[in-house]
Amino acid sequence: MNETNRVYLYDTTLRDGAQTSGVDFGVADKIAIARELDALGIDYVEGGWPGANPTDDAFFAAPPALARATFTAFGMTRRPGRSAANDGGLAALLNSGAPAVCIVGKSWDFHVDVALGISRTENLELIRDSVAAIVARGREALFDAEHFFDGYRRNPEFALSCVQAAHEAGARWIVLCDTNGGTLPHEIERIVAEVARSIPGGRLGIHCHNDTENAVANSLAAVRAGARMIQGTLNGLGERCGNANLVSLLPTLMLKLGYETGVARADLKRLVHVSRMLDERMNRAPNRHAPYVGESAFAHKGGLHVSAVEKDPACYEHIDPDLVGNRRHILVSDQAGRSNVLARLREVGLEVDPGDGRIGQLVEAVKRREYEGYAYDGAEASFELLARRALGQVPDFFRLVSFRVLDERRWNARNELVTLSEATVKVEVPPFAQVGTAPGQPVMTVAEGNGPVNALDQALRKALRDVYPQLEGMRLVDYKVRILTPNDGTKAVTRVMIETQDRSGDRWSTVGVSANIIDASFNALFDSITYCLYRSGAGREAHAPAA
Amino acid sequence: MNETNRVYLYDTTLRDGAQTSGVDFGVADKIAIARELDALGIDYVEGGWPGANPTDDAFFAAPPALARATFTAFGMTRRPGRSAANDGGLAALLNSGAPAVCIVGKSWDFHVDVALGISRTENLELIRDSVAAIVARGREALFDAEHFFDGYRRNPEFALSCVQAAHEAGARWIVLCDTNGGTLPHEIERIVAEVARSIPGGRLGIHCHNDTENAVANSLAAVRAGARMIQGTLNGLGERCGNANLVSLLPTLMLKLGYETGVARADLKRLVHVSRMLDERMNRAPNRHAPYVGESAFAHKGGLHVSAVEKDPACYEHIDPDLVGNRRHILVSDQAGRSNVLARLREVGLEVDPGDGRIGQLVEAVKRREYEGYAYDGAEASFELLARRALGQVPDFFRLVSFRVLDERRWNARNELVTLSEATVKVEVPPFAQVGTAPGQPVMTVAEGNGPVNALDQALRKALRDVYPQLEGMRLVDYKVRILTPNDGTKAVTRVMIETQDRSGDRWSTVGVSANIIDASFNALFDSITYCLYRSGAGREAHAPAA
Repeated sequence: MNETNRVYLYDTTLRDGAQTSGVDFGVADKIAIARELDALGIDYVEGGWPGANPTDDAFFAAPPALARATFTAFGMTRRPGRSAANDGGLAALLNSGAPAVCIVGKSWDFHVDVALGISRTENLELIRDSVAAIVARGREALFDAEHFFDGYRRNPEFALSCVQAAHEAGARWIVLCDTNGGTLPHEIERIVAEVARSIPGGRLGIHCHNDTENAVANSLAAVRAGARMIQGTLNGLGERCGNANLVSLLPTLMLKLGYETGVARADLKRLVHVSRMLDERMNRAPNRHAPYVGESAFAHKGGLHVSAVEKDPACYEHIDPDLVGNRRHILVSDQAGRSNVLARLREVGLEVDPGDGRIGQLVEAVKRREYEGYAYDGAEASFELLARRALGQVPDFFRLVSFRVLDERRWNARNELVTLSEATVKVEVPPFAQVGTAPGQPVMTVAEGNGPVNALDQALRKALRDVYPQLEGMRLVDYKVRILTPNDGTKAVTRVMIETQDRSGDRWSTVGVSANIIDASFNALFDSITYCLYRSGAGREAHAPAA
Repeated sequence: MNETNRVYLYDTTLRDGAQTSGVDFGVADKIAIARELDALGIDYVEGGWPGANPTDDAFFAAPPALARATFTAFGMTRRPGRSAANDGGLAALLNSGAPAVCIVGKSWDFHVDVALGISRTENLELIRDSVAAIVARGREALFDAEHFFDGYRRNPEFALSCVQAAHEAGARWIVLCDTNGGTLPHEIERIVAEVARSIPGGRLGIHCHNDTENAVANSLAAVRAGARMIQGTLNGLGERCGNANLVSLLPTLMLKLGYETGVARADLKRLVHVSRMLDERMNRAPNRHAPYVGESAFAHKGGLHVSAVEKDPACYEHIDPDLVGNRRHILVSDQAGRSNVLARLREVGLEVDPGDGRIGQLVEAVKRREYEGYAYDGAEASFELLARRALGQVPDFFRLVSFRVLDERRWNARNELVTLSEATVKVEVPPFAQVGTAPGQPVMTVAEGNGPVNALDQALRKALRDVYPQLEGMRLVDYKVRILTPNDGTKAVTRVMIETQDRSGDRWSTVGVSANIIDASFNALFDSITYCLYRSGAGREAHAPAA
C-alpha cells in the first residue's frame, strides 16, 4: 500500500483523445493544448505516437518547451520476431527525444492468442525487451497494460505476469487499462488492491474509459486501492464514450479528497479556461452541463432553489464555483418567477426595486419570447438588452427600413463556378428628429460577403460606421443555427445564436428567431451591434428615450 | 440488509429533468415520454408537481393510461403552521388522482434552520403529518430526503430522525437524496449501509446528481449497500450537471450485475430508441458519446482496433451492442486507413475487392474532403454516395446550371413587416443527350419558401417532380449549421448537415460545405435528393454512366 498523498496526472488528450470521432488535431492545436496542460500543472503530457502519422511526426520533431510537465511519447511493444534493437516502431519512440516513453502491451491471454497470435511466453518477452530498451536509453518508461481488467478476470496469473515483467524490466509506472471500459468501480477497487500486493501502489496507474459512465468513479476507486497515477483526457475526450475526465477528477481529488497533484490550488482556477480552450480548438460548443466547469454547473433555475441560494449559496452548491474558475448563474426561463428575474438582473448589474411594475412585464416578455423559440440561457447579451429596454435604458441607435439579400451560384462563360452574396440595407441613423417616432437620416448601402449573413453584416456596418466608429474591430466568432419544430403543428422556426468579439477580446452572445434564417440572423446581429454600442456608452445622452 | 435481487427504477425526467436549462416540456411531450417509460418497463413515472404550474395541472388532469408503471405526483411536505388537512399544496397532490405521491422534505439541520427557519421538532412533524396524510388517502407514499448526505455528514442523528419519521408514518420508500451532487461513491456506500441498520434496504432509495460526474457510480454504490430504488432520468437530464442517468444504469444493473428490474431483457433493446426519443422531443442532437446508446458507443476508428474488431468483436466491446438496441460503427475519418474504409463499405452493403485500385482513390477523396471541412461521421448518406460515385454506381440524376436566392425584409405601405424568400433554379434533367457531357433538357423554376433554403428546396423539387415523382413526400427534418474557423488563417467555411425523411419514415443525413451557407445547404440538399433517387432505383438503366 502506498502511503503518500501525491497523485500524478497523465494527460492523453493528444493521443487517446485524438481517436474521438470528429476530432482531428493539427500541429498548432497540439502545441497550444500541451502548453495549457503544462501551465495547469499536469504531470505528464502524452504528445502522440511518433511514427504513426505525419502530424505526430511533425509535432515530435519540434515539441513545445514545457516548464514542468514530462513530455511523453506513446507507442507499442516491439513486434514479434524482431529484436528491440531492430524494431522500427520502438526506434521511432526512442529517437523522438521525449524524456518519457509509454508503451502499450497485451495482458489479456485472449488477445495474445487471437489478436497477436503468439505464445504467452513470447508476449512477456515483448514487454520485458521493450521496457528494458527504453530504460537503457535513459528514458522514463511507462507500461500501459491493455485490457488488464478483462484479462485479470479470466486469467489473473497471466495478467499479473505481464505487469510484473514490465515492473522487473524497470518501468517507472505500470498502468492498468480498462480498455473496453466495461469494468465497474467495485471490481476496479478489488483488482487494483490485489495487484498492489505484488507491485507497490506508488508505481501503479489507472486508465479508464467511460463505457458504463463510470470512468471517473473507476479512477477514484483505483486511487483508493493504492494507485497513484491517473491517465485521462480533458473534458473526457476519447474514442466511443470517452476517457476518464481529468477536468472532473482534479477538483474532486484536491478539494474533496485532500490529495496533492502537480496542480497548485490557485491554478485550479484555470480549469474552466482550460476546458473551454479545448472545445475552442475543436470548434465545439462547450458542454453546459459538465461537472465543475460547465456553464450550468452552478446554475439555478427552480424558484425554490433560487431564493434559498440567495440566502446562503452553501444551501445548494457542493463547492464554491470560484475555486475552479466558474461562477454562479441564475437562469431565466419559462419557469422563472420574479425572484429568478430579479437575481438575474442583479447579475448583469441592474439593481431594481422589486416592487417596480415593469418587472412583471419583463417576466411576461421573457415567457412570451421563450414560447416563440428564443432561448436566453445562452444569450446573455440579448437578455440584458431585453431587460434594459423594458426599463427604458436602451436608445434606438439605428432603425432598419429594409434589407435585401441576393445569393447566386452559376457557371460563367469560362465554365467557372461563381458564387455571389450581396446585401442591400436601408437604415436610419441619428440624429432622429424626435426620438421614438420621427425618422432619422436615411443611409443606404450595399456590400458583398462570404455568404448572405456576412454580406448583411458588412452592409449594416458600412451603413453605421460613420456614426459609430466603435463598431470597428467587432467580429462574429461563432454562429449557430437550430431549427425548432414544435409538435403542435405550427410552422418551424429558426433560432440563430451569434457570438461576437470586440477588439479587447470581450465576447457576448445574442439570439434571433424567425421563420426565415436570414431574418433570424438579422435579429441576432441587430442585438449584437446594439449591445456593442450600448456598452461603449454611445448615444447615452443624445438619443436616450424620454422615459 | 436486503436479500432480494429486484431493483426498482423511478423516473423523474418529467419533473427534475424538466428543471434543466433550455428544457420546456409541453403536455404532449409529457404524455409521449410517460408512455415510452411505461413501455420500457420503468416502475415509477413521476409526472410533475400538480399545483405548481399550468402544464403540470393540465397533465395531471388527464394523465396517460399506463399499463405497468405507477404514475406518481411530486410535491412538498406541508407548510409550517398549517395542518396537513388545510395545506393547499398537499391537497393538490392528493386530489391529483395519482396512485403514488412522492414528497420532498428537509433532513439537513442547516436547511431547517436557515431555509425553513423552523424548529427541528417541527420539521419532523411536517414529515410525519404529510406522509400520514398520503397513506390515509390510500396512496403509496414516497419520501425524498433532501440533502440527506450533506445533512448526515454534519448531524447524523437529526438526518436519521427525519427519515425514521417518514418510515414510521408509513412511507413505502425512503429516498436518500444527494441534492447538491457533491457526495462521492465511497461515502454514499458507507452512509447507505449505516442507514440500512435502521430502515430495511428494501425500503431505501437513492437520488443522485452528477456534479462530480459520479451520479451513476453513486447510485450503484447505494444499491451495493442495500438500497433497492434508484431515482434518475433519461439521458441524465437534470438541473446543473444532471441527474443519475437511468439509460446508463439499466444495462449495467441487468447485464453486468445480475439485478432484476421492471424491464424485460428483450425490452432492453428499446433503450436506444427511448434515449433518442427524448432528444427528439427536446429537439436536441443525441450525445454521440453516450454510454451504451450513443452512436459512437460501439464505434471503432483507430486502424489497429478496426482490424481486431473484424477478427472478434469481443476484443474491443464490453457488451454486444444489440442487447441495448445499438450497433457497431466503423468510422471513416482522416485517420482512416484502407481497413476502415473497407469495413465501412461493407456496412453500407458494398462488397469490394480489397485490391481494387479505386479504394485508394476513395481513401484520398475522404481525406481531402475532411480536410476541406466535410464530416462523414454523421452523414452516412453522403459517404455512401461518395463511395458509390467513386465506384461509378451513381448516375447524374440532374445537373445544376445556376440558382439565385433573394431574401428581403421591409415594411410595406401599410407599415406591416414583410419578409420574402424567393429562389430561382435552372437545372438540366434527363434525357441527357450523352451521359457525362452533353446537356439535358433545361428546366427553370421559381418558388417562394419559408426562408432561403426552403425556397431553394421548393424550387429544386418543382424542377424535378415531373421527371422524378418519387421525390414527393420527402421532407427536411433537421438542418444544422456549423461555422468552421481553422486556425491556419484560411477563411472560415460553413458546414451544413441535413436530415431528410421519406414517406415511409426512413431517414438519411447528408453534408455540404462551402464558404457560403446557401451554397453549403445546396450541396447537402443535392446529396439528399440524389440519395433519395438512388435508393428508389430511379434511372438505374437509362442514365447509368458508361463505366
